[in-house]
Amino acid sequence: MTFLTALDAPALRAAGIPEPWSYGRADKVRFGEIDALGHVNNVAYFRWFETLRVNYLQDYGVHDYTSDAPRPRIVVKQVTAEYHAELMMADYIACARTVEMRRTSFTQHYALFADGGLKTTGSAVVVFLNEDGSKMPLPDTFRETLLKRDSTIQAGPQT
Amino acid sequence: MTFLTALDAPALRAAGIPEPWSYGRADKVRFGEIDALGHVNNVAYFRWFETLRVNYLQDYGVHDYTSDAPRPRIVVKQVTAEYHAELMMADYIACARTVEMRRTSFTQHYALFADGGLKTTGSAVVVFLNEDGSKMPLPDTFRETLLKRDSTIQAGPQT
Amino acid sequence: MTFLTALDAPALRAAGIPEPWSYGRADKVRFGEIDALGHVNNVAYFRWFETLRVNYLQDYGVHDYTSDAPRPRIVVKQVTAEYHAELMMADYIACARTVEMRRTSFTQHYALFADGGLKTTGSAVVVFLNEDGSKMPLPDTFRETLLKRDSTIQAGPQT
Amino acid sequence: MTFLTALDAPALRAAGIPEPWSYGRADKVRFGEIDALGHVNNVAYFRWFETLRVNYLQDYGVHDYTSDAPRPRIVVKQVTAEYHAELMMADYIACARTVEMRRTSFTQHYALFADGGLKTTGSAVVVFLNEDGSKMPLPDTFRETLLKRDSTIQAGPQT
Repeated sequence: MTFLTALDAPALRAAGIPEPWSYGRADKVRFGEIDALGHVNNVAYFRWFETLRVNYLQDYGVHDYTSDAPRPRIVVKQVTAEYHAELMMADYIACARTVEMRRTSFTQHYALFADGGLKTTGSAVVVFLNEDGSKMPLPDTFRETLLKRDSTIQAGPQT
Repeated sequence: MTFLTALDAPALRAAGIPEPWSYGRADKVRFGEIDALGHVNNVAYFRWFETLRVNYLQDYGVHDYTSDAPRPRIVVKQVTAEYHAELMMADYIACARTVEMRRTSFTQHYALFADGGLKTTGSAVVVFLNEDGSKMPLPDTFRETLLKRDSTIQAGPQT
Repeated sequence: MTFLTALDAPALRAAGIPEPWSYGRADKVRFGEIDALGHVNNVAYFRWFETLRVNYLQDYGVHDYTSDAPRPRIVVKQVTAEYHAELMMADYIACARTVEMRRTSFTQHYALFADGGLKTTGSAVVVFLNEDGSKMPLPDTFRETLLKRDSTIQAGPQT
Repeated sequence: MTFLTALDAPALRAAGIPEPWSYGRADKVRFGEIDALGHVNNVAYFRWFETLRVNYLQDYGVHDYTSDAPRPRIVVKQVTAEYHAELMMADYIACARTVEMRRTSFTQHYALFADGGLKTTGSAVVVFLNEDGSKMPLPDTFRETLLKRDSTIQAGPQT
């Protein structure tokens, strides 16, 4: 079965997307994402960034599914988007990186490129919860992956 | 035909929603807005706040449709949401107010109340554009309405 | 907290909606449901009919939540919509009724009224499943409610 | 810029999708398309089929954009979906073909394959309208393309 793969740093550079972006996914605007003003609706970007975030976390190995370690409940605490230019029916590449990690949460930045330019940026504060709703410290392996792949800054105490 | 009306300050107070909120709309969570985690998906709130914003602008008379004045193209420059508590299937009231107006743009705050508490807050920077994409100054009548109804602060030069 | 209630037969008649409709809900088109063609997108109606279906099943007491009886997993087997006229920004009333029940499934019809006319009709075949995925016979109390409220036809063997 | 291409008959056969499907697109389920039941929400498929339909019509050259011929307003008259099996987070391929054309409308069938099997089928009756809302006969070039690529049956009078 055909499947869609993430774009790494070389693939993004080849597509004209600058550093520091090193994780992205290509997609096409859907007709239903265009609103009455004839451009991509502001809400659609949040769906795209969420889709990217979920794939990113899976690809970055947020959890070792072969272990018995508890699986985090992943929720967002805050989400933002800033719209720099309109987008019509087009192919686009959405990029994500984790800029800062704290004990139980981290901050991601997003960028949306299309038609050779930056259209929209965004951010999310992501929190890991235990089943009982208490905060779960980020797993060490995930923390190491963030450091290695995104040069994520460790802010504040790690434990 | 039955229709749904906005809630004014007295109606909001009666529903337990504090000052300074004076414009809101009641609705119910839709099943399709609940995600795999069993709570309202983070993106749904942006749809609710957009719906509220459009109704607010209509109710606040953003344009006198009997005049020949050009009708603004209304776009958002920035949107945010902060999630304070989860929401399940419930009735809710979404509130909006304009906190600051500038020459061609203004900033709105949003709040989402359900189950007797504040669940989510949000904001949007809204811009008025002319047909050619240039910025349109906020109409004076709209500016006066914002001042009168929301005590909106005028920031920076008005012209 | 303010909440939105279902419309019964007298309320629907008062709104100009003919027999046999006896269950409906009023709502407003959301800006985000208008597509690039300037009318309500065809997919939005399916969201509306789903929302109506879930509220209908709750209001018709699909399950006595005070009992220990297993709660059905409710899924759709087939969904259709027929578009008779376009819909723009407007208030609307969506109506549902169950026209036929079988041992483990039933068929609902939907109708969407706005601007004084019928805009869209639809249908769904709904199935009740047990936790293990096997089909669950419709509870007797639900069957009786369908017969009493919607004059639903019993098709085929009941057990 | 990277972009996503349609799958033709050989690509679909290679992915295990049988005749007569000869047009499809691969995609991934988005987290936001999973509902509270933990599977792809029934409404999501309609969005996928719409997205596929719009791309299909563009790829089949519904209009020669270099000519002065009027561009049709493309609307759906009827849409259906039948759900054969649940779908979770997975890669999928959505396929479309036009089975019958009439003077001003045509009928498409859709199929959704994932995890090596057929999950959902659907249909749409698509109508071409002139700007004034009157029906537009299908352009001859489009009719020829449908015949050649999909062996679409001509039903009733062509003019």
